[in-house]
Amino acid sequence: MQEKEKIKGPLGIIAGGGQLPCVVAEAAEARGLPLHIVGIRGEASPAIERFPHTWIKWGEFGKLFGALNDNACRDLVIIGGVTRPDPSNIRLDLGALKNLPFLLTLGKGGDDHVLSNVVRFFEKKGYRVHGAGDVVPELLVEEGVLGKIAPSAADRADIELAFTVVDALGRLDVGQAAVVIKGYVVAVEAAEGTDAMLDRCAALRVSGRTRGQGRTGVLVKMPKPGQEERVDLPTIGPETIKKASAAGLAGVAVAAGRVLMAERGATIEAANQNGLFLFGQDLTAESDR
Amino acid sequence: MQEKEKIKGPLGIIAGGGQLPCVVAEAAEARGLPLHIVGIRGEASPAIERFPHTWIKWGEFGKLFGALNDNACRDLVIIGGVTRPDPSNIRLDLGALKNLPFLLTLGKGGDDHVLSNVVRFFEKKGYRVHGAGDVVPELLVEEGVLGKIAPSAADRADIELAFTVVDALGRLDVGQAAVVIKGYVVAVEAAEGTDAMLDRCAALRVSGRTRGQGRTGVLVKMPKPGQEERVDLPTIGPETIKKASAAGLAGVAVAAGRVLMAERGATIEAANQNGLFLFGQDLTAESDR
Repeated sequence: MQEKEKIKGPLGIIAGGGQLPCVVAEAAEARGLPLHIVGIRGEASPAIERFPHTWIKWGEFGKLFGALNDNACRDLVIIGGVTRPDPSNIRLDLGALKNLPFLLTLGKGGDDHVLSNVVRFFEKKGYRVHGAGDVVPELLVEEGVLGKIAPSAADRADIELAFTVVDALGRLDVGQAAVVIKGYVVAVEAAEGTDAMLDRCAALRVSGRTRGQGRTGVLVKMPKPGQEERVDLPTIGPETIKKASAAGLAGVAVAAGRVLMAERGATIEAANQNGLFLFGQDLTAESDR
Repeated sequence: MQEKEKIKGPLGIIAGGGQLPCVVAEAAEARGLPLHIVGIRGEASPAIERFPHTWIKWGEFGKLFGALNDNACRDLVIIGGVTRPDPSNIRLDLGALKNLPFLLTLGKGGDDHVLSNVVRFFEKKGYRVHGAGDVVPELLVEEGVLGKIAPSAADRADIELAFTVVDALGRLDVGQAAVVIKGYVVAVEAAEGTDAMLDRCAALRVSGRTRGQGRTGVLVKMPKPGQEERVDLPTIGPETIKKASAAGLAGVAVAAGRVLMAERGATIEAANQNGLFLFGQDLTAESDR
């Protein structure tokens, strides 16, 4: 588990894509925390501009640290999706050259290796890196049934198997999600992402290669065991539910407290409207799964 | 490992799709073994008709056992792909009704569970079930470099990681294949099959979501640990090589002696022409991986 340090000073938010950076910023504002967003151009949404902000390009380390220092940000949240940068879009400034050994570590290994390096890099420079859930606990999916529908006993068995599969893969730094239908592991996520995996399940269902009539099976998401949970928690949203519905699944289950839900209301509403369950499973009891 | 019993009597070949049933029949003929093919209609190729044969529909157990008994076949090879049968195509005869408890086991669990049940079913009736590789050892991919190109040190590292991933998944009765590119697990096979997984890798490569310029990365195939290797060995062929090539991979590695290659010459030729390595890895040294 990540440490739960008290955040005192101005909060620096290093923003990739999606709505999460603004959600974190709003929560910080609501708590009276001063903040400054550093948005990565081409990744972060223009919506960050309603908060104090600085835009940087990939590789502009000097500008990044300048913005954090000018605003006295020692506490950081690094949040939002990033694509693997296109080399032609990277602009290396003097700060980048100073940090070249770090940059060279980024090209190797799986995602988790890269993200752990990112966190260590900021920590070595004296920053405190927090998870989005430390600033906005309500972003994390809580334990239990979230919508109107509860998983059946058969669903619970599929959930259990899917968590076992994702856990085994996660130990090898692969994926964060799997789909199980009636005891049959239909799909396992690697580089393609959850949405693409769900599209594939929908296609398999149409072609008759997965069993079961009506809504059956589950999508499960959880972080990799031992992964750097401060910068890369799995996320779900209304789109996840809609794609799970299109794949004919009965519902979605995630590791309670360890998966982010950016649009809480809309996500639960999508589950209810499509007749899917949405469930937060407490995995802490199973200690070191 | 499967037992290597000496095959004495007439050989019964229960034939699904593809070329393998005829390859096995030819090899049996070459060894002077009498044989009889029982072809599953809609699955087996009409090419089986050049051998002594009987056609059955899914579910015609009485006719199946009749054909085997009339031809004194106590040694069986069950070979060739089958689709999950369309219920409207199943014709249950009296033999099927007698074997109803067995039939009811087929709808549940993963592939391996189903296939183990199939083998046990025939064994209980006194048949000896052999792997295709027992009859035609040259069908199995041998150890070492098969074509003109050898895997590099970097390829060997990717191969090692991919075997580790497939092994971990296989223990959960999931998939038989994975793709690793420069230490990054790009795709893991579940219900979609190897061809669909390779198509996905090609798409990820085009979209720039996998790293590496030029040919990099490997496809690895191996049986699941503990799987019933007499009826369901993984297979590769020229099409596998072509799809691996389209995905930009450097080569294909399989568990030596435990993966079938139906079209040996054409498969090696496809590897050479496309500039891919084709490698049989000896996994026995790693005993109980």
